[in-house]
Amino acid sequence: MEDKYITLAHGNGGRFMRELIEEIFARHLANPDLDTHADAVLLAVGNPHLMITTDGFSVQPLEFPGGDIGALAVHGTINDLAVSGATPRFLSLNAFIEEGLEIAQLDRIIANLAGAAKETEVNVVAGDTKVVPRGSGGGLYLATTGIGVVTKPRDLGLQKIQQGDAIIISGPVGDHGTAVMLAREQFGLKGDLRSDCASVLPLTQILLEFDGLRFMRDPTRGGLATVAHEICQATGFSVRLYQHNLPVRPQVISVCEMLGYDPYYLACEGRVVAVIARENVQEALTALQSHESGKKAAIIGTIEAAGKHVVLETELGGERILEELEDDPLPRIC
Amino acid sequence: MEDKYITLAHGNGGRFMRELIEEIFARHLANPDLDTHADAVLLAVGNPHLMITTDGFSVQPLEFPGGDIGALAVHGTINDLAVSGATPRFLSLNAFIEEGLEIAQLDRIIANLAGAAKETEVNVVAGDTKVVPRGSGGGLYLATTGIGVVTKPRDLGLQKIQQGDAIIISGPVGDHGTAVMLAREQFGLKGDLRSDCASVLPLTQILLEFDGLRFMRDPTRGGLATVAHEICQATGFSVRLYQHNLPVRPQVISVCEMLGYDPYYLACEGRVVAVIARENVQEALTALQSHESGKKAAIIGTIEAAGKHVVLETELGGERILEELEDDPLPRIC
Repeated sequence: MEDKYITLAHGNGGRFMRELIEEIFARHLANPDLDTHADAVLLAVGNPHLMITTDGFSVQPLEFPGGDIGALAVHGTINDLAVSGATPRFLSLNAFIEEGLEIAQLDRIIANLAGAAKETEVNVVAGDTKVVPRGSGGGLYLATTGIGVVTKPRDLGLQKIQQGDAIIISGPVGDHGTAVMLAREQFGLKGDLRSDCASVLPLTQILLEFDGLRFMRDPTRGGLATVAHEICQATGFSVRLYQHNLPVRPQVISVCEMLGYDPYYLACEGRVVAVIARENVQEALTALQSHESGKKAAIIGTIEAAGKHVVLETELGGERILEELEDDPLPRIC
Repeated sequence: MEDKYITLAHGNGGRFMRELIEEIFARHLANPDLDTHADAVLLAVGNPHLMITTDGFSVQPLEFPGGDIGALAVHGTINDLAVSGATPRFLSLNAFIEEGLEIAQLDRIIANLAGAAKETEVNVVAGDTKVVPRGSGGGLYLATTGIGVVTKPRDLGLQKIQQGDAIIISGPVGDHGTAVMLAREQFGLKGDLRSDCASVLPLTQILLEFDGLRFMRDPTRGGLATVAHEICQATGFSVRLYQHNLPVRPQVISVCEMLGYDPYYLACEGRVVAVIARENVQEALTALQSHESGKKAAIIGTIEAAGKHVVLETELGGERILEELEDDPLPRIC
């Protein structure tokens, strides 16, 4: 790493973060069970197969339309298990609480966290709290580790992706990023947009029925474009996305145009991106659309020949390269 | 809870923290698998038996004689598994990194964390990093969740403790708390004290061989006195501690006298407190003392009739009540 000090760009889901993780965390912690490119990994113990994943949350503000840091801490982690083919069962919870936080707000957040856990049938089985002095925390940081059970093992992963495969998304992109952005008072904007913060487990269970399913991911930090770049990095293929099929709410487009953001880089918290064999894609799309939370699912792209580019075919028929994220478009979104 | 805002006392391991956990976290998150009084709980899945625990770390300074936040994040969590009768196998790691942290320091800390994991044969299998803006973090906060395997299930716990049982400690108390305190420049004191930060797994494995073993705990935040209070709260018994048998290093006593601390409330990070049947205690003591890290082990107390008091029998033959912790003697010690 060239940098001497940590910058916010080391947390944005893009190149700097990848370097930080590879050159410090993965280098020191390397072991056969660790896969820094996977959302969740198998625990090498007994039966049934267990998967584990972990996520930290520092979203600002702590509460926003459609969710809060508590609901996010459940959905963010269980969604990583779901897209890895597991059924989430257990959560551990760490809370770093800043001195001065209003206890009523903490109570609302933990109540929402408990509600989200109950709704998705996971139990919080271990927890710890630390209180940090005023000015040493952002109100509340949460970290959750999730354990899931794999009932029907499937060989999924970036390495299964083939040229010609189709890319599906389960709903509109950018809702979470835009809703959190609007909830930050300094923008002085208000909208009726809500975060898409939700469990994707019903959708991943639908997709797991298809033999041609290669890979699933929830496009959180760094958004859809960052998932596309991960595919390119891991496979050497290029990704082509079709703007005319790509669902983005009109309000998200308006806000992005006004503030100069690109919705393809904004976080979702209740969507799945799936890569699936061409012969299964129509049937999978129909199945997703039959579920309440998959109504706006769409086929949005194709895996193309080698090149490692993410190309957006625009509505006017032109092409735009979506570069790997470097600057942080929107820090502390999750 | 009477308070409206979080204070540092909500993080000190004493009464305010217990109320915060019971009235907010445990109330909302209640489920059959969660036991807020246990160091680790069983995961209700398959074979072999698995246990889970989690811990957050916000120690200040990040590096101190005898350890750093990285080594602590491994030992603190695996020790909770060890005292629960499990062999630690897997860790997840969350890092909340403050903008401006020196990358060379982060590198040293993660290298030490990896070293501690390797030494205790646990693999970090899942991780996540978040970068928080300058002024919203204490340099680095870590959270680790540990998964351990129980090869020979034992029925241990506070509920197994009986009147007349003996209390053993594996070594001197207060080293970690005092070493971290001295490392804080504002005290202007320097000493040759080192944190006791280490794995207690070899010691718990020795103790697990004894049928009369009832309960083990690592006396971290809130120290030995807080473990004694947990025993009283859970059992209704009283705890009597013998000062003349209780190992405390002379340097720890000097520093405590100078600064007005009580070593019995200071955190250890490499000690075990065990409650064991009277008939096994001498043999268990000898076994502990035969191990390098248990050389200074001692029989330090007895479980007495109902009363819920923690009584220290002083060297002069008097008695002193050790009250439940309320004020925070030393925040951010782990």
